[in-house]
Amino acid sequence: MSETEVPSDHRRRGGRTGRAGRAALPFPIDQKPFRQPRRRFPTTDIVSADALEAIHDASLTILEEIGIDFLNAEARDIMVKAGATVEPGTIRVRMDRGLVLQAITTCPAEFTLHARNPAHHVRIGGDHVTFAQMASAPNCSDAEGGRRPGNQQDFRNLVKLGQSFNILHLSGGYPVEPVDLHASVRHLDCLHDFATLTDKVFHAYSLGRDRICDGIEIARIARGISHEQMNREPSLLTIINSSSPLRLDDPMLQGIIEMGRRGQCVVMTPFTLAGAMAPVTIVGALAQQNAEALAGIAFSQLVQAGTPVMYGGFTSNVDMKSGAPAFGTPEYMKAAMVGGQLARKYNVPYRTSNVCAANTVDAQSAYESVFSLWGAIQGGGHFIKHAAGWLEGGLTNSFEKTILDVDLLQMVAEFLEPLVVDDATLALDAVRDVGPGGHFFGTPHTQARYRDAFYAPVLSDWRNFEAWQEAGSPTAMEKATRVWKECLAAYEAPPIDPAIAEELASYVARRKSEGGFKTDF
Amino acid sequence: MSETEVPSDHRRRGGRTGRAGRAALPFPIDQKPFRQPRRRFPTTDIVSADALEAIHDASLTILEEIGIDFLNAEARDIMVKAGATVEPGTIRVRMDRGLVLQAITTCPAEFTLHARNPAHHVRIGGDHVTFAQMASAPNCSDAEGGRRPGNQQDFRNLVKLGQSFNILHLSGGYPVEPVDLHASVRHLDCLHDFATLTDKVFHAYSLGRDRICDGIEIARIARGISHEQMNREPSLLTIINSSSPLRLDDPMLQGIIEMGRRGQCVVMTPFTLAGAMAPVTIVGALAQQNAEALAGIAFSQLVQAGTPVMYGGFTSNVDMKSGAPAFGTPEYMKAAMVGGQLARKYNVPYRTSNVCAANTVDAQSAYESVFSLWGAIQGGGHFIKHAAGWLEGGLTNSFEKTILDVDLLQMVAEFLEPLVVDDATLALDAVRDVGPGGHFFGTPHTQARYRDAFYAPVLSDWRNFEAWQEAGSPTAMEKATRVWKECLAAYEAPPIDPAIAEELASYVARRKSEGGFKTDF
Repeated sequence: MSETEVPSDHRRRGGRTGRAGRAALPFPIDQKPFRQPRRRFPTTDIVSADALEAIHDASLTILEEIGIDFLNAEARDIMVKAGATVEPGTIRVRMDRGLVLQAITTCPAEFTLHARNPAHHVRIGGDHVTFAQMASAPNCSDAEGGRRPGNQQDFRNLVKLGQSFNILHLSGGYPVEPVDLHASVRHLDCLHDFATLTDKVFHAYSLGRDRICDGIEIARIARGISHEQMNREPSLLTIINSSSPLRLDDPMLQGIIEMGRRGQCVVMTPFTLAGAMAPVTIVGALAQQNAEALAGIAFSQLVQAGTPVMYGGFTSNVDMKSGAPAFGTPEYMKAAMVGGQLARKYNVPYRTSNVCAANTVDAQSAYESVFSLWGAIQGGGHFIKHAAGWLEGGLTNSFEKTILDVDLLQMVAEFLEPLVVDDATLALDAVRDVGPGGHFFGTPHTQARYRDAFYAPVLSDWRNFEAWQEAGSPTAMEKATRVWKECLAAYEAPPIDPAIAEELASYVARRKSEGGFKTDF
Repeated sequence: MSETEVPSDHRRRGGRTGRAGRAALPFPIDQKPFRQPRRRFPTTDIVSADALEAIHDASLTILEEIGIDFLNAEARDIMVKAGATVEPGTIRVRMDRGLVLQAITTCPAEFTLHARNPAHHVRIGGDHVTFAQMASAPNCSDAEGGRRPGNQQDFRNLVKLGQSFNILHLSGGYPVEPVDLHASVRHLDCLHDFATLTDKVFHAYSLGRDRICDGIEIARIARGISHEQMNREPSLLTIINSSSPLRLDDPMLQGIIEMGRRGQCVVMTPFTLAGAMAPVTIVGALAQQNAEALAGIAFSQLVQAGTPVMYGGFTSNVDMKSGAPAFGTPEYMKAAMVGGQLARKYNVPYRTSNVCAANTVDAQSAYESVFSLWGAIQGGGHFIKHAAGWLEGGLTNSFEKTILDVDLLQMVAEFLEPLVVDDATLALDAVRDVGPGGHFFGTPHTQARYRDAFYAPVLSDWRNFEAWQEAGSPTAMEKATRVWKECLAAYEAPPIDPAIAEELASYVARRKSEGGFKTDF
């Protein structure tokens, strides 16, 4: 049987929400229903408790003695009210360890992010793992169309792919930045797309107060809930990057304030590249990461105690020849795993990433990504951002890399499925039947299970060399192109209440008529 | 600076044993001195103690009730003398759990394998990790020469590469089978090559008594030691594969007997592909793997108590469409990790592998290999066989894959290097100097460390997209071709005492004149 002749009953479908009364088209790849993997084995602690304490201690010394620049007056006031000091005439905030450690005690250890489709709610924390599509790429690429700056059509196609794959639990931001939309209204069009083309949780950018408030309102309308319910049920998240070293910019602080006051989720992620925006030693970069993360997390709790928050780690090394960031390196893995240890110390869910520095979907992209996933999974990542699509250190979202990553994530999810050990799986009777020197191909035990016994990969080509060569020695890249096109063709918009659709459209139209977010260009 | 213009002082060399009085040529890639990585963090247990006990118990039931075919009369006699039973008129050996569990108590938990160069001794067990070159491929391939059946020239070139890379601690077997040498004398030529072209530990095949005895003698002569010292110091290893399900073939049993009596190392590795030679459930395949491994390990101890032995795991799934083995799959990872749990239960060092099913050095080869390494490292592998070169489920040893794997192994070794946490690495002074909003590129802390701060990859291309595209969009494959050729050109034979070289040559000449190993073709 050739690889394309898969019997249709061998394909597992699920989680497809076809319109009522209309049978869903067969989806082009095998996928399991939407479900969060759970990591049931212990995380890997690569530094000792003493070493972790030393990193923790250094980061608190940074906050006490060096301080963080807060580029927002309201935020500085909140910090001062809580006991921090601001050097007169400056924006430098210093906070003692007691303040920080007290503030973060109100962080929830686990929480639920609510999607407009309740089947797509995700649990953050505990042993739950969440995969989120890549965001924030200025470019996108595919094998046929090449590399190009982002635009609305590619944006929408990537959003549709994010909705289509059950292994992607979350989306948001800009999978690629649609620069053909004016910056003043770009966020409105994009948020509207997320609210209609997907029914999963998404995230909005903290690029000023109005934009993040639009995000909160669009997420609320999409769910069809009251403001009060919205405040109780986190339904939107935002990624807060510190401007390393040791600065929290104005739009980011506005984001924490608005999201915190509405009980929405803040993912505090310093961007501490060792040797560039942080010390060249990974341990020093981690101490700085921890200082910046703790400052942002503490601030979120001072805005409103109990704000759902994640500890984000993004420490990696740079290529010392070019200054370009490197990802999926040994240093990245170690940083990702120590980041997890720190987050666990504070009992805050941990965000990490699936990232690489490769320019194309080659061996490098694969090994850097799997090393990243190794660090993320063994390091206790709860929320794995940029899980599908990422190339070139984040400069490009690749349609083919999306498919490669979907395959990798599905494999990781399958790895995380626990082995069931019982009489049926121990199969003593089958061993007895076959006995020494036989084979198991035709036994009833095999026949009853072989269809679903093993993960069926999307891209792996398991034909023998001769058959593969005869087929033209196809690469994973070529197959990936076919797959994303088929998946896009099979995309079906998730159902939406017409009244909600109308309310979303009106809101966006009104905000556009008001000029959207004022820009000076 | 382009990727080829690496300043020479940025390259780290070491472990190169140039001839006395002659400066070693610069080696084409950065490599650290020969050293075994150590896994200092806990292994990952993916099944509970109860589940492990159930697998253990099922395997002992297999040995008691179903039994194993021993295809060698002397081996059956040894088993019967120890209390096992043989069904009259058959070769079926049944052994009760008391016998098996008592026998394996004499296995050493750790031991040293001795190379003819003492700097290349390797420690097996504990937290030590050992990487061994691929063996037993019928074909080899490179990008320019294509895929071809093995021959002596390719064999020798691969052996030289095995010697050249410090991250490969061990070699042996046939990296590719040189079918241009007659089978009766092939092992003599090949063992002679290992004893002269390398000074690392190697392994010999258990393909009949005479061949394995030739291996022991050649390893002894190469080390220049007495028979008595050889018996005390394991200096050769052999891989024993059971003929799954539940058979131990005559040549393999002869191998255990001869190696055990001389105190040499036996690596007991069932080849239990779930759905083919073992039950379709991974748990059932593991129970069978464990039965076969315990039978062979117990037998090795009954031959001679204290025989250095390893528990080998090679359980994977098959492609249910073709019956071909799949590797680096989620099922493979789980099997590798449970195999480690079982080996730890018996306090026996654990052998696993770096394997894939890909036909070329593409994304698939990379992700399947890194998933394999993830399972191996987190699963507690001590001896990682087929660590460099493996393609096509073992049918081909690829020169380019060798380079890719060397890069992957060096990255894993770097990942395993512990983070040093002290005042210098915490870098508080550097953070103080730079302060909020600065950068660390030019700081003294960075300047003092940047050259060796991070792993310098062999293949990863970290140029930006435009520079990479301008260079012709090179792939890892193309760079790998250049690297293996340069490494081969830089190869230098390790020094050898002329008297030992002469004794080796004489031994091989005499054994050849005697006809080598009698074959009927």
